[in-house]
Amino acid sequence: MELKEAKKLSLELMETSKAAYLTTVDSDGYPITRAMFNLRNKEQFPEFSKFFAGLDNEFDIFISTNTSSTKHKHIQKNPKICVYYCDPEDFKGVMFGGEVEVIDDMDIKRKIWLDWWTRYYPEGLEDPDYLLLRLDPKTAEFYYRLQKVQFKPRKD
Amino acid sequence: MELKEAKKLSLELMETSKAAYLTTVDSDGYPITRAMFNLRNKEQFPEFSKFFAGLDNEFDIFISTNTSSTKHKHIQKNPKICVYYCDPEDFKGVMFGGEVEVIDDMDIKRKIWLDWWTRYYPEGLEDPDYLLLRLDPKTAEFYYRLQKVQFKPRKD
Repeated sequence: MELKEAKKLSLELMETSKAAYLTTVDSDGYPITRAMFNLRNKEQFPEFSKFFAGLDNEFDIFISTNTSSTKHKHIQKNPKICVYYCDPEDFKGVMFGGEVEVIDDMDIKRKIWLDWWTRYYPEGLEDPDYLLLRLDPKTAEFYYRLQKVQFKPRKD
Repeated sequence: MELKEAKKLSLELMETSKAAYLTTVDSDGYPITRAMFNLRNKEQFPEFSKFFAGLDNEFDIFISTNTSSTKHKHIQKNPKICVYYCDPEDFKGVMFGGEVEVIDDMDIKRKIWLDWWTRYYPEGLEDPDYLLLRLDPKTAEFYYRLQKVQFKPRKD
């Protein structure tokens, strides 16, 4: 498979995968995986399509979570994470790895916010428990059936 | 949620999840996730139902892979893994963690074998590239919507 094709299929998969599988590493060195909202899923989060279409680094991943969460504890000690998107019925998957960062910039947080999220963050956008994470991935692996293509997701 | 209910729902999820999401940790400490065959899925692998129903440790996980695979390289250096099962549309997931082991016992390997797997291992059951992994999990976390229940998956 051509690199260009693998990148295209990866971006498509990021827009359709039912979840984003986030893995952090705990203080004992065990990986911990859980499904998160896939904010790039166009059907589930159409409000964010424009934001993602305008990214400088097209593979940047944003994850909304809670400041009080276990995953926040993990990444404070160890920012190495991976995020996996997949279509298990078609044996298609793409994994991104790198160091995650916490986004404090309110302009960005405002763009990744939906009013119904007060269900999770009662105080709204400024709720101190609303934590926004970004992964500007360093590595990527695209899998399709028995093929595997590694690529650099960064433009630079 | 009651512990008993969480365990029951976890076992059900292991039998229906479209894939088993396996995470290993690479030599640089980055977690690496990919979807694997979920051998406990009753629809996909009905041939193995009886084997899994008869396990001493009901949450034991078996994963078929290749001796030549990257994940094998990872676990030789670091056996800490996790395996995640989920139903993303229902916000249900269960994650198991622990140290993985390679199964050399041919009696067990024979029970986890299907003839069409010669597609992956041309020499059949005795193909040196057929690698069978087992996780006798130490920890488990069951997620259902906003609830999280931790439990000990081992009988002892």
